[in-house]
Amino acid sequence: MLKTRLFTPGPVPVPDRVRLAMAQPILHHRAADFIPLFRACREGLQRIYQTQGPVLLFAASGTGAMDAAVSNLLSPGDHALVVRGGKFGERWDEICRAYGVRTTCLDVEWGTAVDPARVADALAQAPDIKAVYVQASETSTAACHPVREIAEIVRESDERLLVVDAITAIGVYDLPMDAWGLDAVVSGSQKAFMMPPGLAFLGLSERAQRFVERSTCPHYYFNLKKELKALPTDQTSWTPAVSLLFGLVETLRIILDEVGLEETWRRTEKLAQATREAMRAIGLELLAPDAPSPACTAVRVPEGVDGPALRTHLRDQLGFTLADGQGKLKGKILRLAHLGYYDRFDTIACIAAIEMALAAVGYVHKLGEGARTATELLRD
Amino acid sequence: MLKTRLFTPGPVPVPDRVRLAMAQPILHHRAADFIPLFRACREGLQRIYQTQGPVLLFAASGTGAMDAAVSNLLSPGDHALVVRGGKFGERWDEICRAYGVRTTCLDVEWGTAVDPARVADALAQAPDIKAVYVQASETSTAACHPVREIAEIVRESDERLLVVDAITAIGVYDLPMDAWGLDAVVSGSQKAFMMPPGLAFLGLSERAQRFVERSTCPHYYFNLKKELKALPTDQTSWTPAVSLLFGLVETLRIILDEVGLEETWRRTEKLAQATREAMRAIGLELLAPDAPSPACTAVRVPEGVDGPALRTHLRDQLGFTLADGQGKLKGKILRLAHLGYYDRFDTIACIAAIEMALAAVGYVHKLGEGARTATELLRD
Repeated sequence: MLKTRLFTPGPVPVPDRVRLAMAQPILHHRAADFIPLFRACREGLQRIYQTQGPVLLFAASGTGAMDAAVSNLLSPGDHALVVRGGKFGERWDEICRAYGVRTTCLDVEWGTAVDPARVADALAQAPDIKAVYVQASETSTAACHPVREIAEIVRESDERLLVVDAITAIGVYDLPMDAWGLDAVVSGSQKAFMMPPGLAFLGLSERAQRFVERSTCPHYYFNLKKELKALPTDQTSWTPAVSLLFGLVETLRIILDEVGLEETWRRTEKLAQATREAMRAIGLELLAPDAPSPACTAVRVPEGVDGPALRTHLRDQLGFTLADGQGKLKGKILRLAHLGYYDRFDTIACIAAIEMALAAVGYVHKLGEGARTATELLRD
Repeated sequence: MLKTRLFTPGPVPVPDRVRLAMAQPILHHRAADFIPLFRACREGLQRIYQTQGPVLLFAASGTGAMDAAVSNLLSPGDHALVVRGGKFGERWDEICRAYGVRTTCLDVEWGTAVDPARVADALAQAPDIKAVYVQASETSTAACHPVREIAEIVRESDERLLVVDAITAIGVYDLPMDAWGLDAVVSGSQKAFMMPPGLAFLGLSERAQRFVERSTCPHYYFNLKKELKALPTDQTSWTPAVSLLFGLVETLRIILDEVGLEETWRRTEKLAQATREAMRAIGLELLAPDAPSPACTAVRVPEGVDGPALRTHLRDQLGFTLADGQGKLKGKILRLAHLGYYDRFDTIACIAAIEMALAAVGYVHKLGEGARTATELLRD
């Protein structure tokens, strides 16, 4: 009876209540009973996004909403600035180029945050830049970019957008879309929303909606103009993923009404802090020590330790699924999640498992010191 | 205690077993336990498609796979022939034009099937046509187009594709992809698959895969080249909708291994036949008498009857949700589903409800004659 535990930074475990909510009998999305469901989803999304503007929903994974945030905001030949500090920064660049958008990439060492002054310089050098694309939390490196400071710089012009991949930031920490002046904010169901994958969300400022009107990139399934027009009629353009919407209403109720958004941020941050201290206590190095994301923690596999063997031991012997590194970090780091449906005891158990697995593959440390540190820090 | 019953031609009711299967704990799509799940989905899809080729899966609704079947097969400036005999025929035209594909539309009276000779003529007149887009079953009118005959004509050239929207045909009736030489076949989870919406499927012939290599339309989320490359590694490019895949495995088990594909077609056809006879017995006119789809039956609202009032009575007083007409048929027809999770007794009950609602809104007929007819026809 090996119990299995999922610690990847999305998907994260789905609460039983949410899984059972999704098992409700299906309803027809053009029938009257869809309206209260859809409204509850949209209102909850506006609260978690901290926006008065529309948050669109797509039957897609997060990459779908990223695609839409390029193909429906810009036009071929437009110039975009991309902050590229990990696998998902690379994705912004790829999407832009797929649609004929010219990119200038600010390459940032993986695991570090971009210096906002570099964004300011790049914008000063190329005033034709129409949009800046960035990750709030770069999931591949567990580092956060300073979105608030970047927004202040981008906001010096009203003719420029800041587009934020907040897939592991919305519901993870305070990222107020309206207050900071973010123009397009992407997220997805399988992260802080504690849902299965299959829903993508996209919040749009008024400025972004003006860009939608002007965009000429070809697209069909992701059509923001059409979705924005359908929204006041309580509809989506295409058939929505109704069973996932049942789950979304339930999870938004938990996050917003029962736990509270601030408490959710606080819990996630506490788990992340304790994990970082625990990793340091057993001699492990963080990948992103200076700008750590509370969404997940990335630790370097210690010298002499076989990364894949460590992950395999964790999974097959101990039942813990953690995430590998992506791209050039493959096999070199371990990532464990804090966002979503985790509490103190989940986190302590995962740290203990990492310690046991390290010991099993020959890493010498004071076994249990990580668990002890986390227990102490997570007492209250 | 008004019991509610869904009779729209997708979404259709989801069997309890499938709903509970989707409530399983989530797993990570890059972890080892994803592989058997994904393989079972793909193998089942190949069986239901009757193809040896790949059937791709997308986190999207059916329109997403329709988009992919244009934006990944053709290039801007290419010429396509579109059979336009309903709302979904119009959609093929819209998608083509969204990507700069020139279209010639064969307009077909709504509710009738296209004459294959017209397809042959159109191809003879425009030898530069690279692809023919058609619906197998045009859900908006409940009419079937003669895909087999069209395929024989299209197959006279190896440099031309036949792309079939089979969203209400796959799993509904015999539509053997390989045997008939269909090149790209689209379907979606909320139809014969008896699943919630949120998954789209796309089968591709070898010829279609060659077109994928050459296509230059811009796209990112729907990237068939990337998906075809990921398939042999048991992966999708982007995060798949894992909970829906749990349901897909279960529903494919029911359809393919327990009920059987041929028995599924036979049952659907029987329900459709009996419904058509029952509708005639109470004096109602079919919209597509000459080429009726077994997926659903569309009946004209009788003269003097208020269509919306009839549907409202069915829904609010009797608990039956049926589909309205779409586009220019809005308010003029009723559509009731046969594809998916329906048996004889569901169908008889729905016919009885239609009769009661007709009587309530003042249509004079021999009440119960429809239910009687269906009961007689569905005895065995």
